[in-house]
Amino acid sequence: MSDTPGYPIPLSEAVNALRKLPGIGPRTAERMAVWLATKAPEAVPQQIALALGNLRTALRTCRTCGFFATDEECDLCRRPDRDASTLCVVETAPDVLHLERSGSFRGRYHVLGGRLSPLDGVGPGDLNLASLRRRATEQEAIREIILATSADVEGEATAAYICDMLKGCGIQISRVAHGLPAGSGLESADRLTLQRAISGRLPA
Amino acid sequence: MSDTPGYPIPLSEAVNALRKLPGIGPRTAERMAVWLATKAPEAVPQQIALALGNLRTALRTCRTCGFFATDEECDLCRRPDRDASTLCVVETAPDVLHLERSGSFRGRYHVLGGRLSPLDGVGPGDLNLASLRRRATEQEAIREIILATSADVEGEATAAYICDMLKGCGIQISRVAHGLPAGSGLESADRLTLQRAISGRLPA
Repeated sequence: MSDTPGYPIPLSEAVNALRKLPGIGPRTAERMAVWLATKAPEAVPQQIALALGNLRTALRTCRTCGFFATDEECDLCRRPDRDASTLCVVETAPDVLHLERSGSFRGRYHVLGGRLSPLDGVGPGDLNLASLRRRATEQEAIREIILATSADVEGEATAAYICDMLKGCGIQISRVAHGLPAGSGLESADRLTLQRAISGRLPA
Repeated sequence: MSDTPGYPIPLSEAVNALRKLPGIGPRTAERMAVWLATKAPEAVPQQIALALGNLRTALRTCRTCGFFATDEECDLCRRPDRDASTLCVVETAPDVLHLERSGSFRGRYHVLGGRLSPLDGVGPGDLNLASLRRRATEQEAIREIILATSADVEGEATAAYICDMLKGCGIQISRVAHGLPAGSGLESADRLTLQRAISGRLPA
């Protein structure tokens, strides 16, 4: 692209930079760059530059739960109105964002930073499991730990490992429910989802 | 989005900035921002910030042809190996990029900055038509002007207007060919395209 004669350097630099974004191919990157160069409100390219420029330096990892933080501890760990007796264990920081947006959980979180995946070389030592055990054993406030890892083989294995690890802590361990997703019928559910929807049935 | 409690400010700023890009919705912007914050190579957010930050200040408009330039005149107007006897008139600067990438034209360009569109309030005074007339009358080198405006009503009207304007200049005016796009059969062409493909037929 930058080798095309006549292609102005600032534009091809913008195209090459935007192509690094996930899911953005050369054509889309060019469309975006041209829009930013010609049609966008004057301030927009600068606004994006500013927001991305300090993203990595401004975002840190909460030393308690592993979620995004701007300080030593994240906003969620510091808030006194969050229920300290319930801990929700998730795989990644974005999982916390999803749960927060759903408004379905008011406790605290623990971010594992991944899930057990022997094929990818991810073992227990690569996850924030030691800090989870520490939180479970040293903080008397915790009464329930909800395992919200994914509903796939690796997520299940990770949940099983944590169950095992926390056995004898005297804390209730639960797993998020699996079943039919809201708004969908039986016809669009796969076999495993249906099996779990049946086996996990509750009194109506 | 930024109102969700627990959502770290640098991340929501990045999401809001990326949402300004054309075709990027809130979900995609969040996916991009999270990727930039966690999975992207450390330098990538900075690289994008840098490329976009000086895009508007680095890119100027060529005073001769209206294409993107980094100086007073664009690279294409300055290159001695471009054929100065042929001028290709296009609607927008990105049109030049498309033609350059196709490698099908080795002359010089003139960017109108739009096309005649009375409904949108775009009249002849809003386009770079005076400078086109100046180039056509004052530069003896120009022997042919190719009108490469779009193949729609407004593009045709613009081409017709320019034809009229340049009548009597002693320059050959031509219009890009219209017909079947490469690689497509008759079944996918609309009626107007087929009419033009027939009426514009050439000896085989």
